Amino acid sequence: MQALWLEERQLTLREIPAPAPAPGEALVRVRLAGICSTDLEMTRGYYPFAGVLGHEFVGVVASPGPLHGRRVVGEINVACGECVQCRQGRPRHCERRTVLGLAGRHGVFAEQLTLPLDNLHLVPDDVPDDEAVFTEPLAAAFEILEQVPIQPADAVVVVGDGKLGQLCAQVLALTGCQLTVVGRQPAKLQLLADRGLATCLADAVPDRRADVVVEATGGPGGFELARRLVRPRGTLVLKSTYVGRLALDMSRLVVDEITLVGSRCGPFPAALQALARRQVEVRRLIQARYPLSRAVEALAHAQQPGVLKVLLTMPA
Amino acid sequence: MQALWLEERQLTLREIPAPAPAPGEALVRVRLAGICSTDLEMTRGYYPFAGVLGHEFVGVVASPGPLHGRRVVGEINVACGECVQCRQGRPRHCERRTVLGLAGRHGVFAEQLTLPLDNLHLVPDDVPDDEAVFTEPLAAAFEILEQVPIQPADAVVVVGDGKLGQLCAQVLALTGCQLTVVGRQPAKLQLLADRGLATCLADAVPDRRADVVVEATGGPGGFELARRLVRPRGTLVLKSTYVGRLALDMSRLVVDEITLVGSRCGPFPAALQALARRQVEVRRLIQARYPLSRAVEALAHAQQPGVLKVLLTMPA
Repeated sequence: MQALWLEERQLTLREIPAPAPAPGEALVRVRLAGICSTDLEMTRGYYPFAGVLGHEFVGVVASPGPLHGRRVVGEINVACGECVQCRQGRPRHCERRTVLGLAGRHGVFAEQLTLPLDNLHLVPDDVPDDEAVFTEPLAAAFEILEQVPIQPADAVVVVGDGKLGQLCAQVLALTGCQLTVVGRQPAKLQLLADRGLATCLADAVPDRRADVVVEATGGPGGFELARRLVRPRGTLVLKSTYVGRLALDMSRLVVDEITLVGSRCGPFPAALQALARRQVEVRRLIQARYPLSRAVEALAHAQQPGVLKVLLTMPA
Repeated sequence: MQALWLEERQLTLREIPAPAPAPGEALVRVRLAGICSTDLEMTRGYYPFAGVLGHEFVGVVASPGPLHGRRVVGEINVACGECVQCRQGRPRHCERRTVLGLAGRHGVFAEQLTLPLDNLHLVPDDVPDDEAVFTEPLAAAFEILEQVPIQPADAVVVVGDGKLGQLCAQVLALTGCQLTVVGRQPAKLQLLADRGLATCLADAVPDRRADVVVEATGGPGGFELARRLVRPRGTLVLKSTYVGRLALDMSRLVVDEITLVGSRCGPFPAALQALARRQVEVRRLIQARYPLSRAVEALAHAQQPGVLKVLLTMPA
């Protein structure tokens, strides 16, 4: 089968053998895959990995069993079930985990993939592929609500109007909080304004007033702005990974008693439910589609500044 | 009166006029003052300040009024009562605050000081001066319990066996949690072992197992160790200020979904109550006493590696 292979920061389209599901795993024929900023960071050496890239997908189960022929999305962390983290109820933090297209397991920029049945979630019939493919990043946005209690009276700021910021903003808006999205690009902020969300440019937000700030840019400038906006004893959620180290004034965090919360993968059921109920609108984030055969070009496109979601379509 | 004056990183003993209390303030005759690591950092330029240094004290109210002649300790942040932080119930984070011996207000390394009556707390009769002088740093240790819920089943590690680590450990032990103090100096760890607390040297603690880690060293090495010890989705409390910037691998915090909590000043009533009930033992932390007239020497002593609490006694 065709697959986009990453090795030593080089992307190549390869013909590789179709994967064979291990016991407890399903073979899934990919229908649509999404390119995430983490994929782009992987091509810059964020994490050592050789194999098929990609972790956002919607597909159809091709192997026999109760899910055969059903449309599914899949959680990306595959847990061992036996280590301390698993036993203590944190399988997404399994110490021996493999991660789809990121660590020890081939990803979704390919015609087919394998994942444990336990990782798969059925897609409701009324959620089209174009929306279901956003389940994984949308679940990551819902993770914020699992970690930080947010009240309707809270002043919440999302820093970043990119792919992740757009999803975080829509999820946070569901809480009824006093939300503002801070960005740099009027066209992207307009997408949020069209949904009735308050937006503004970075220099228009008062310092030290937000109860909760979500940093969704992944850049040092975004972090610095987020830290400036959060009030004393407020919460700063880090939703992005960062390449390299950030030089931080930790005393500022101590003196202002800021709580900083690292936030990664989240609950798929909440994301699927929000899509089914039309509580979030993701299709307007789709900026381009490429067939798998043009995947290298697709990633180059996704890497351009200001580009939102680029999708890969698979051969029928 | 005699006072220890800090200006442009230089400490000098000076004769200055006795302070005059403003309306709502009391004049307090200092009996005993404690040297804190922050005082030492101030002499290294941690924060620009010119005036009388020091913020840990026990004294007797010298001005007329209901508290006249009573023994008191005092909260160090003086709030305006009108700014957003004050109105939202965070007076210790007042935007126009002065801070005793640290910002805009002369400190306690002097014969007398002034503080608003609202900042003063009566010292119970059965708490001697030698213990009452620890109220402020002990309150800072109690701040952890106001910020982080700690259960008896939680594995908690304190990194640092110095002044602050000793107090944090004793306070955390009150929760019944599974506590370990990690340090470098056997003599200091022995003080905690004598109270029945589990201690060990830094290289003897397993990585990624602690639910809560309290960083109480104020150094980059201590932070790095603390980060290593906390489990995924665990909490890392920063109890020290740091000089300069720390270069952090923020992605690690995000991937492990660590919560980082900055923690500063805390509740005086909890600290006084713990002293009155003999729930903590602070006198063994006293390492030396100097009269105010030898304050420069006292700070030099306190600055030596491994020294615990150095006190300043005031002229009768």
